[in-house]
Amino acid sequence: MRSNELDVLINWGDTDMAGIVYYPNYFKWFDIAGHQFFRSCQLSPLTLEKERGVILPMIDVRCTFEKPLYYDDVITIETTVSEVNRKTIKLAHEVYRGKERTGFGYELRGWVEKTDTGIQAVPIPDEIRRILEEDVHTTSQEVKPMYNA
Amino acid sequence: MRSNELDVLINWGDTDMAGIVYYPNYFKWFDIAGHQFFRSCQLSPLTLEKERGVILPMIDVRCTFEKPLYYDDVITIETTVSEVNRKTIKLAHEVYRGKERTGFGYELRGWVEKTDTGIQAVPIPDEIRRILEEDVHTTSQEVKPMYNA
Amino acid sequence: MRSNELDVLINWGDTDMAGIVYYPNYFKWFDIAGHQFFRSCQLSPLTLEKERGVILPMIDVRCTFEKPLYYDDVITIETTVSEVNRKTIKLAHEVYRGKERTGFGYELRGWVEKTDTGIQAVPIPDEIRRILEEDVHTTSQEVKPMYNA
Amino acid sequence: MRSNELDVLINWGDTDMAGIVYYPNYFKWFDIAGHQFFRSCQLSPLTLEKERGVILPMIDVRCTFEKPLYYDDVITIETTVSEVNRKTIKLAHEVYRGKERTGFGYELRGWVEKTDTGIQAVPIPDEIRRILEEDVHTTSQEVKPMYNA
Repeated sequence: MRSNELDVLINWGDTDMAGIVYYPNYFKWFDIAGHQFFRSCQLSPLTLEKERGVILPMIDVRCTFEKPLYYDDVITIETTVSEVNRKTIKLAHEVYRGKERTGFGYELRGWVEKTDTGIQAVPIPDEIRRILEEDVHTTSQEVKPMYNA
Repeated sequence: MRSNELDVLINWGDTDMAGIVYYPNYFKWFDIAGHQFFRSCQLSPLTLEKERGVILPMIDVRCTFEKPLYYDDVITIETTVSEVNRKTIKLAHEVYRGKERTGFGYELRGWVEKTDTGIQAVPIPDEIRRILEEDVHTTSQEVKPMYNA
Repeated sequence: MRSNELDVLINWGDTDMAGIVYYPNYFKWFDIAGHQFFRSCQLSPLTLEKERGVILPMIDVRCTFEKPLYYDDVITIETTVSEVNRKTIKLAHEVYRGKERTGFGYELRGWVEKTDTGIQAVPIPDEIRRILEEDVHTTSQEVKPMYNA
Repeated sequence: MRSNELDVLINWGDTDMAGIVYYPNYFKWFDIAGHQFFRSCQLSPLTLEKERGVILPMIDVRCTFEKPLYYDDVITIETTVSEVNRKTIKLAHEVYRGKERTGFGYELRGWVEKTDTGIQAVPIPDEIRRILEEDVHTTSQEVKPMYNA
């Protein structure tokens, strides 16, 4: 399955008064890493919407926290396709500080077409499925525009 | 000039590793207090856009910080019209913890019409000016929907 | 089991360019509703830490999204104790707009003592367990300081 | 005067329902760019606090908005020392999308020592002043850890 990795530097504003990362920020990073994943295989959300009228609404997310994260930590978010279902895509995210995993989770997104009368989940086209299921690993350094925030 | 006050409870996620409020959150509160101010005089942003095609883009903001704020502090944001110019409105915001002021600033917003060809600053209508300049003080307890987040 | 409900007004800044709530904000509200739940039964996080040296780190969270939320929506977050395990507490959160549920999830938190040598999960005391398992429902209107942001 | 530039990619979560960047995010970037500036001249906030007991609390900030910013825009934040006063430092920030400036502002921070009895603004040491006033320009690509979020 396709995967992408993204380095993120943890900002002052990501912490809370316990001196560690405030947990909802993990989902900010999951969302960023997910968008970067789609960019990494030429399926950027803006392009999908413009060229295909397809959006990727969030259905279900989860995160398990293993170790606290701190200001100035550099983390790597490993994003891997874990399921390509008929009308949904599941991205697994793992967060590492060096070799130590600090948390992991997933995002389940729908493949949804916007039409004149509303929005509707539709089957994922075969050529998209092939891209998502291909055994390729990319890093944010190779993806443009490079992730930076 | 018209004014409105709004009570806010400071959340865990508003703090940073210094144990105090992360400063950009002041602007989150200014924005919330500004929206609540406009609701308080029946000029809610959604209504303005729907009924008049008017939006209120931010032009200039400033904040001066006097005292740190902490988790579980209850603050009161006093929002007062400080200028009604030809095409702009300035809201002054003061933040109090009890009787102690902890910071103050302003937001300068444009009065802008959306048209088929784009957006354009236009003169503030007299009936709006009268509402903004009226000498009335409201509190969030009287404003519906009541502010809560 | 004990439960608390909290009303929240959705802010402009909670939305994204799709015109709906940006999903990580659900976890901001879960965290706020969780803190408010603990306040509702006299177990506020600050008091727990000061009087017992106990903190409640996040172990696992999940959210399932059913309907989009919009600016100016008033939502009610229903927070209910769903598990009191030996060393962990699970809070279930359900989000309603009127009678319509828009999403639901949970937070699993540890019961952890800070000591001179570090932190350690410890058994939840019986008197705490009794409070959490009591069949009582409160609302944010009865809880002081009232939730407001 | 010393300056540093930092590239940032605008995330989905930085936008609001108007389809443009929610304005308080400018201050998130100012704070990030400020921290990166201090890292760029070996005065990282963590090091300052550890080695000198010095923190840099925010006193005053301002931002003027010239053009809207959008999802997927790559912006460059130019951070330049504009004042080194006796006990305060002013950083000017300018935000560019390519050659077009979209906003500008400043952060005024104190030079404050933590002591046993509290905190106190103290004169900025000469060797720090020399570093800040040196005519050097750096970019985030040369700064480690590289900015990424």
